[in-house]
Amino acid sequence: MVEEIVEKVRTSGALVHNITNYVTVNDCANIILACGASPIMADSILEVEEIVAICDCLVINIGTLNERTIESMIVAGKRANELNIPVVLDPVGVGASKLRTDSVLRLLAEVRFSVIRGNISEIKTIAMGSGKTSGVDANLEDLINEDNLKSNVEIAKMLSKKYMAVVAISGAIDIIASSDSVRLVHNGNAMMSRITGSGCMLTALIGAFIARHTDNLFDATTTAVISMGVAGEYAYRKSKAKNVGTATFRNYLIDYVSTLTAEEISEEAEYELYR
Amino acid sequence: MVEEIVEKVRTSGALVHNITNYVTVNDCANIILACGASPIMADSILEVEEIVAICDCLVINIGTLNERTIESMIVAGKRANELNIPVVLDPVGVGASKLRTDSVLRLLAEVRFSVIRGNISEIKTIAMGSGKTSGVDANLEDLINEDNLKSNVEIAKMLSKKYMAVVAISGAIDIIASSDSVRLVHNGNAMMSRITGSGCMLTALIGAFIARHTDNLFDATTTAVISMGVAGEYAYRKSKAKNVGTATFRNYLIDYVSTLTAEEISEEAEYELYR
Amino acid sequence: MVEEIVEKVRTSGALVHNITNYVTVNDCANIILACGASPIMADSILEVEEIVAICDCLVINIGTLNERTIESMIVAGKRANELNIPVVLDPVGVGASKLRTDSVLRLLAEVRFSVIRGNISEIKTIAMGSGKTSGVDANLEDLINEDNLKSNVEIAKMLSKKYMAVVAISGAIDIIASSDSVRLVHNGNAMMSRITGSGCMLTALIGAFIARHTDNLFDATTTAVISMGVAGEYAYRKSKAKNVGTATFRNYLIDYVSTLTAEEISEEAEYELYR
Repeated sequence: MVEEIVEKVRTSGALVHNITNYVTVNDCANIILACGASPIMADSILEVEEIVAICDCLVINIGTLNERTIESMIVAGKRANELNIPVVLDPVGVGASKLRTDSVLRLLAEVRFSVIRGNISEIKTIAMGSGKTSGVDANLEDLINEDNLKSNVEIAKMLSKKYMAVVAISGAIDIIASSDSVRLVHNGNAMMSRITGSGCMLTALIGAFIARHTDNLFDATTTAVISMGVAGEYAYRKSKAKNVGTATFRNYLIDYVSTLTAEEISEEAEYELYR
Repeated sequence: MVEEIVEKVRTSGALVHNITNYVTVNDCANIILACGASPIMADSILEVEEIVAICDCLVINIGTLNERTIESMIVAGKRANELNIPVVLDPVGVGASKLRTDSVLRLLAEVRFSVIRGNISEIKTIAMGSGKTSGVDANLEDLINEDNLKSNVEIAKMLSKKYMAVVAISGAIDIIASSDSVRLVHNGNAMMSRITGSGCMLTALIGAFIARHTDNLFDATTTAVISMGVAGEYAYRKSKAKNVGTATFRNYLIDYVSTLTAEEISEEAEYELYR
Repeated sequence: MVEEIVEKVRTSGALVHNITNYVTVNDCANIILACGASPIMADSILEVEEIVAICDCLVINIGTLNERTIESMIVAGKRANELNIPVVLDPVGVGASKLRTDSVLRLLAEVRFSVIRGNISEIKTIAMGSGKTSGVDANLEDLINEDNLKSNVEIAKMLSKKYMAVVAISGAIDIIASSDSVRLVHNGNAMMSRITGSGCMLTALIGAFIARHTDNLFDATTTAVISMGVAGEYAYRKSKAKNVGTATFRNYLIDYVSTLTAEEISEEAEYELYR
């Protein structure tokens, strides 16, 4: 699965429309290019319907949402649905403000998403339809571990059924749920949480991966999560060897997404079906 | 020509006002600093006229334009014209939406540009006054090669006459056209198209180069294109030697713009007059 | 002082709310993470009061202010004041336009700041209540040196008293003034002015440092300035050794903020009480 999907993405040239935040937008554009796809960022309501129509996927990330861009997200999402273009949601910081929670619930009500990716605090907020996150990072008490794995898997499955979307929860163990299956991914490295944009980049990568795999969202999403995790492991090892810090680690991370072969990613993949 | 112009830019301290997109804005600011000039980014209609008045050049890039910033571009451009401050246009993704095409045509009608830089799909769209690009990268069928070089040169010359501006088309072979001369630049490397912002950075660099060469826009633009191309070649060689990917390549590219001497750039310059 | 404060910040996990510019926002988020705190960027007036309420500090940076975000800054600042959350101001380019000068004076009138950090041209503009800066970098005639040190210290002290805030002026010699004491910091390297965002990153770092030191703003601000300066020195030495340019220097700078131990920073600290 992994090798085949990565190979296809490498030569896909898929065009990914991003309505995203201004904090990590450059990293998102670069990681989409790194994996073999092409990004276009456009957020004016006067053009998003046309832009999404020439693209193969739409990624909506609410990281720095405002009254203007929320409307663009809704309009672009609806148009993507009409055209059967897959849409990915990154509900950054949902629960941290009424604006974020209301906007995410409105997006979920008005737009059909193919994939929803967030950290466990964000996903829990969506599951409860309300909630309290403390910022854009997962709450400490929420971090996925063996103890709370079962209940977190249940949340992912429930949400996947409710919204008919693949749900990906990022953490020490990543959970990817479709309506009838759940996979756990064990790749990745803690240093990824010491840079901004690890989550946003993964969401963008998922967009690039599903663009040409609309018939197999579950496998494509899993493979995107694995690819990011393996790149993170390679980047961490090189960072340790070279004795560098977080900024250079970020560059290595994107570097490896651009240079690792499908075979190398496949060899390091650590995932399992959850039973 | 090359050595002299690069040398002057290195110590120019020219101030470049950018109304640009939020995807590549950090790279644009850093490349302007790298070459010896200073950037200022400001896009509020309440201040752009004052900001442009203290600057030596204005760069307008429509990468993530919206209803608010378009008006700022128009107002700043007109004020620059009044003050005889040169203005550069990067029509990112023109043709991908009515908003982009209409905005670029409006800018061209209301503001006098010194230089227009784009990829061949963007330039063709402007030449035809309408058109269809697929995103922010050049269409595959449009890529400049020996076969279509002649017709692309004609488009550049025609546009240059029509808008009384230097026209620079980026591609495997770069075309720079003034009303009566055309140069081809053979520097550069394909890896530049695997990162976001190569085009935007070149446009910003052109702004920095023409700021103190308003009497010689054609040579200054050519030299900016050569400088970027040579930096790309150096960055590519180092990237291969160090076995790194696209993110580190991006850093090397900006690094070399900051470290290459005028002599080094001049030595590697490959350009010719087109007859 | 230095060692203790850096140590505490490393493990603080303080959450820093930034209303900042889109040029250097990614660097600001990464440097906040690098030092041990967490960033959140949010600028919609519909959410900033809620966001600031879950944070430990608010950083306001006017680098690319506009009519929409100015109101968000005011509202967030007032809410932070009500909640006794410290607020830091970076008056980027104040004096370059009426909008910037008026907005900074309004912010200073309506919001109580804990720390104000700028270059000498910006600080002078605030001190005079008007003025003329040429862009976002300090005017050449303003650069801090032994000759004008005394008068610049007087300005910092006066401003500190007037606004009951710690005032930090960045330059070859950094000046940090509280109402009754002044410190000079001699760390740092000139290469920091060859990248965009050195100033913005320092302001963000100050935010992260004072978040858990609200009872000792003067020491925490001094230590943030020292930390940035020492990281700049390390980054410069490595850049020279590796023969790289400005982009890689920027990465090294953030790298060192993430890797230098409290002891290493303390050992290199060069500061003195000004008498």
